[in-house]
Amino acid sequence: MAKEITPREEDYSKWYIDIVKKAGLADNSAVRGCMVIKPYGFAIWENMQRELDRMFKETGHQNAYFPLFIPKSFLSKEAEHVEGFAKECAVVTHHRLMNDPDGKGVVVDPSAKLEEELIVRPTSETIIWNTYKDWIKSYRDLPLLINQWANVVRWEMRTRLFLRTAEFLWQEGHTAHATRQEAIEEAQQMQRVYATFAEEFMAMPVIQGAKSANERFAGAEDTLTIEALMQDGKALQAGTSHFLGQNFAKAFDVKFSNQNNKEEYVWATSWGVSTRLVGGLIMTHSDDDGLVLPPRLAPIQVVIVPIPKPNGEINEVAESLMDELKAKGISVKYDQDKKKRPGFKFAEYEMMGVPVRVGIGKRDLENGVVEVARRDTKEKSQVALEGLADNIQQLLEDIQNNLLSRAKAYRAEHTTEVNTFDEFKDVLANKGGFISAHWDGTSETEQKIKELTKATIRCIPNDAVEEAGKCVFSGNPSTKRVLFAMAY
Amino acid sequence: MAKEITPREEDYSKWYIDIVKKAGLADNSAVRGCMVIKPYGFAIWENMQRELDRMFKETGHQNAYFPLFIPKSFLSKEAEHVEGFAKECAVVTHHRLMNDPDGKGVVVDPSAKLEEELIVRPTSETIIWNTYKDWIKSYRDLPLLINQWANVVRWEMRTRLFLRTAEFLWQEGHTAHATRQEAIEEAQQMQRVYATFAEEFMAMPVIQGAKSANERFAGAEDTLTIEALMQDGKALQAGTSHFLGQNFAKAFDVKFSNQNNKEEYVWATSWGVSTRLVGGLIMTHSDDDGLVLPPRLAPIQVVIVPIPKPNGEINEVAESLMDELKAKGISVKYDQDKKKRPGFKFAEYEMMGVPVRVGIGKRDLENGVVEVARRDTKEKSQVALEGLADNIQQLLEDIQNNLLSRAKAYRAEHTTEVNTFDEFKDVLANKGGFISAHWDGTSETEQKIKELTKATIRCIPNDAVEEAGKCVFSGNPSTKRVLFAMAY
Repeated sequence: MAKEITPREEDYSKWYIDIVKKAGLADNSAVRGCMVIKPYGFAIWENMQRELDRMFKETGHQNAYFPLFIPKSFLSKEAEHVEGFAKECAVVTHHRLMNDPDGKGVVVDPSAKLEEELIVRPTSETIIWNTYKDWIKSYRDLPLLINQWANVVRWEMRTRLFLRTAEFLWQEGHTAHATRQEAIEEAQQMQRVYATFAEEFMAMPVIQGAKSANERFAGAEDTLTIEALMQDGKALQAGTSHFLGQNFAKAFDVKFSNQNNKEEYVWATSWGVSTRLVGGLIMTHSDDDGLVLPPRLAPIQVVIVPIPKPNGEINEVAESLMDELKAKGISVKYDQDKKKRPGFKFAEYEMMGVPVRVGIGKRDLENGVVEVARRDTKEKSQVALEGLADNIQQLLEDIQNNLLSRAKAYRAEHTTEVNTFDEFKDVLANKGGFISAHWDGTSETEQKIKELTKATIRCIPNDAVEEAGKCVFSGNPSTKRVLFAMAY
Repeated sequence: MAKEITPREEDYSKWYIDIVKKAGLADNSAVRGCMVIKPYGFAIWENMQRELDRMFKETGHQNAYFPLFIPKSFLSKEAEHVEGFAKECAVVTHHRLMNDPDGKGVVVDPSAKLEEELIVRPTSETIIWNTYKDWIKSYRDLPLLINQWANVVRWEMRTRLFLRTAEFLWQEGHTAHATRQEAIEEAQQMQRVYATFAEEFMAMPVIQGAKSANERFAGAEDTLTIEALMQDGKALQAGTSHFLGQNFAKAFDVKFSNQNNKEEYVWATSWGVSTRLVGGLIMTHSDDDGLVLPPRLAPIQVVIVPIPKPNGEINEVAESLMDELKAKGISVKYDQDKKKRPGFKFAEYEMMGVPVRVGIGKRDLENGVVEVARRDTKEKSQVALEGLADNIQQLLEDIQNNLLSRAKAYRAEHTTEVNTFDEFKDVLANKGGFISAHWDGTSETEQKIKELTKATIRCIPNDAVEEAGKCVFSGNPSTKRVLFAMAY
């Protein structure tokens, strides 16, 4: 089974798609650019959702649900927003089909044309701020801290499973505040929440920073981002949190009367992560044998394989181990299939990235041990039955930590400071990864670097050190280094 | 606050909308027929989702996600299905907007017309069975037990918040089986799961039965239903489970090789419940003072109100009670707002249907008691601090049980056996509720009764007794009684 995966060295893109398909995560669908998320892939997304949803609620947010459709005119109300999102979107123009008068099948009924076209939401700022107009009257209605789990559609021309699809699943937070400062702090808080989730659950280290003006969300005053580094040296924008200023409040006329009874426009943020995270998870940890999952997000954390087949004695040990693991909140599967050989099962669970595999064989049992294999390093060891469940629990934590350390080490190796544009191009071509370089702060320079190298500014790191320097491209003065990279 | 609700006697429809809006459950949106589900309403739906999702997983189902869009040609592949669903749907015809050459705003870009129109899914049988074609090859791939949580769109002309909206949220199970019998049993199992959920969590008794041919799902061989009775004597179809035979397998050419290596078409079921359940929940229990929620689905199960205001002593009692309740898994809110009077808060939480209200006042504390009010009966009593959390836990169970008994009693009073068509019309006009009557089994009779009275056959109950009788309309022989009613 593992042999069917294209090695990373040979073709990284093909390796990625092989993993997605052979681990049973997702498939292309009959609809251009839309994917089918298969049960195993969806279970990973559900685990992500559960933790994120908890973190959102712990920071005071509530879930709600807004319409799938946005009236066309709403998009035009915020000038930059319409530039960013009106270009490639799904447009609903009719509300009825009819039997084809010329033959079989159905055709659009021309008499059922909508007065105003509806856009399938590419993001929901406009419909939500149009609603907030009714909800917000006074400072007592603020802050309004709302999140939505939803599907959105952006008509992407080049799609790739999870990473870029026409329809994707995401959450979008939309908050409203009485002051500029409070909104900025909210945007920063959610960036931290995303970073914590990425590191603690996905074991995916991220750089927290701000986007340059060129890369900002359409309609934002500031876009905060978390940027991860994939194993091919390309960056992945994994989540963004936007300070929207009063742009949407002005576009939709959302005012509140403050404590002095004076009317002011409301301050806004929005923030989102999507099923793209599943793509990032795959590319951060997996290897040429298949998926590698961090235990905290793995749908199956431990699999038990009887060697060579289930029997009374093995079943007894397996079932008692399952009970102990379940009591610790660990998800476990006992594979009793009698038709598949152990070697086949081993390859299958390696492909699926199950963090820990326990092999129970007759001879081992005589010695009071079982074989425990960890997916991340592929190490195997004989572990005593006595204290086995505790050992496995510890091993899951070790794996979680090891995955994070390994990814951090990879990122450290692939973050390079450069001081000349020749170095910049050399690192980009031969090493990849993040390039830390001085930049003069202008959109023109950023644009030229992008045209020449395809690299973009991933972010201006939150923790960038103030230091005098010269822009790697223009030679003009700069006060801090920013991170460039090729990106997904 | 409570005074703002229209009494049921005066205008039941207006009462319903008043509750939905004033309890903060949902609002109309700027998009025709689409609703905004507000945080409090969404929290009820999340509680429903959590329990249903658990029940689906306990019966062996996994979640997955399929595309929002369905190619137009797919709808035509199942003849009855297209009749049922192609008529009123949202049709995507273009994938781009452009700046209006004649002025402001954006218009549809005529050059971005899709080759084949896409339909926003009204239900997903077609796109899912088109996918199952790739997933199912052998009997070893069966059964395939999949559920999807999703939004769907049906272009309804007359909409009502939660009960009938153009876009709604739901789950749709889609299963594939090797035998007819297994598929039938699956459809029956999911009907039971829905009935259990309705009774145990919603405290909403339901009749389990089968739909007549006229009322079947478009493409089903048999539609099983759970039917509830609302307080205005109208029935609500609360969930359906369909045995689809081999219709979709044939339409999408989904075959499997059986154990004898012979190819056969796959057998199918689909089943769904939606945000309509929130409407059913409201109409089953609420009264002229607002929403009444069964404790098991209430976002806030207990609210603590300081009388008249929070102070050190009251806070101490409230916080220790909160800790004890939370330790029991009970959700509790302590309302420390100093600007609102207790009476205002009481009305507010009555409107919101919070099952138990605890009032803590200085004088009561001197006597070692607090005031506990239950929302269902509006009874108040003095309860000792000693053992208070245990008492509240018991009270929540009592309320849950009382709501179910009350609804069952209402239904029993409003289920009437009739033997003549005059009686039938009389009961329908003057009493409402379910009418249990003999029916000759023909669509013609059913259709005529509907034309004359607007009543429909809600179901042929699973537990209908075999008895010789005469059709209430045609006088032709009948073997069992069926349930008629006016319906939502």
